[in-house]
Amino acid sequence: MGEIEKRLAERGLVLPEPVQLPPGVVLGFPWVRVMGDRAFISGHGPLAADGSIAKPLGKVGHDLSQEQAYEAARLTALAMLASLKQHLGELDRVKAWLRVFGMVNAAPTFDRYPLVINGFSDLINDLWGPEHGAHARSAVGMAGLPFGIPVEIEAEVLIDP
Amino acid sequence: MGEIEKRLAERGLVLPEPVQLPPGVVLGFPWVRVMGDRAFISGHGPLAADGSIAKPLGKVGHDLSQEQAYEAARLTALAMLASLKQHLGELDRVKAWLRVFGMVNAAPTFDRYPLVINGFSDLINDLWGPEHGAHARSAVGMAGLPFGIPVEIEAEVLIDP
Amino acid sequence: MGEIEKRLAERGLVLPEPVQLPPGVVLGFPWVRVMGDRAFISGHGPLAADGSIAKPLGKVGHDLSQEQAYEAARLTALAMLASLKQHLGELDRVKAWLRVFGMVNAAPTFDRYPLVINGFSDLINDLWGPEHGAHARSAVGMAGLPFGIPVEIEAEVLIDP
Repeated sequence: MGEIEKRLAERGLVLPEPVQLPPGVVLGFPWVRVMGDRAFISGHGPLAADGSIAKPLGKVGHDLSQEQAYEAARLTALAMLASLKQHLGELDRVKAWLRVFGMVNAAPTFDRYPLVINGFSDLINDLWGPEHGAHARSAVGMAGLPFGIPVEIEAEVLIDP
Repeated sequence: MGEIEKRLAERGLVLPEPVQLPPGVVLGFPWVRVMGDRAFISGHGPLAADGSIAKPLGKVGHDLSQEQAYEAARLTALAMLASLKQHLGELDRVKAWLRVFGMVNAAPTFDRYPLVINGFSDLINDLWGPEHGAHARSAVGMAGLPFGIPVEIEAEVLIDP
Repeated sequence: MGEIEKRLAERGLVLPEPVQLPPGVVLGFPWVRVMGDRAFISGHGPLAADGSIAKPLGKVGHDLSQEQAYEAARLTALAMLASLKQHLGELDRVKAWLRVFGMVNAAPTFDRYPLVINGFSDLINDLWGPEHGAHARSAVGMAGLPFGIPVEIEAEVLIDP
């Protein structure tokens, strides 16, 4: 077991199963695109343990509280780690986080997007530490996200090729 | 004629003329920014054959059906290929697709953004094949896109320098 | 004094103080993430000279005119340069601009996002010149931006490592 998975286990965290898409949806792209020492990570949303889209769905500030949205962003990080493990074999191959683009599906009255996406960043920083986990970031409000998910995040990381 | 252009011809596809901007609009940036083996592609929208912005304009789910939006995403891919050809000389210099960020200008009731952006991904996968065409992707809902275009897509590709 | 700072001074431009976040907001990420010859720049908004968020806040086309939003995009460029100077020591280390993602917080009736983000691009092109300043760009409409800022921009640049 690698170092990052050891840290996940120490925190009692379990990665979700691979993504289960809604019936009839076929996606013609990989969740992670590796090229040399770069890995581009497709937009991920929060997953339940079985790989289905996590509930609650809807708009932050209306259907979800800020706290629930923070948890959705944290689940999104775990979903992304599950994809990285599947594509790279070993999470320790992620040497550094580089860019995180955090998208929040929010009601017009809610604009504290950074406090939502902190659910993602806090976990990454905790697992990789301040040097390797550091990432440039944006956290912004979207008109909508696929299938009503409250949070979607895409990223780029440096990997050991 | 390169391999990719041969495939375009076999499918009866013709690249549009270079972009014609609406009167009075001057853009201070290139459609493709090349640096070493990386090419960053500016946000493109769907073009008609003469390089003008393709119709219909407006919001998917209100002014356009999902099928029309899929076609707009496909036209956006062709517009991007026209820009790549202009900047690189030869489309075969695109060795791999890396990242695709698909933005959909949609009505509040429409959230099947991935099924729209598939119009882009399906064509890229068809032309470059599953290995080179594969790309990390997000497909999300925007509050608006310039001049009311229904779809805008930006991307990064690996090129033969 | 480096060449870029000389040009800033010649134009009478002064970089703002480092960002002052609203009370209670703690951000767990750097404003610039450097990795080798690449620098990823977090989403920045317009700052006043003292590093506080610049006024006016709100939606372009409702709370701000297009001209005010152009100025906000220009202030966003200066805020980004302040972060780059802080992280790199010297702005001349920025060898080339690569990617600019311009986000506009706009009223539903306003869709001339490119003319807003030109406030950013015009300044970068002026300071770095057409070859080094050129960047791939998108300029799009967001449902909302943090704390009601009218413009947010993220970017990637090539640096002298």
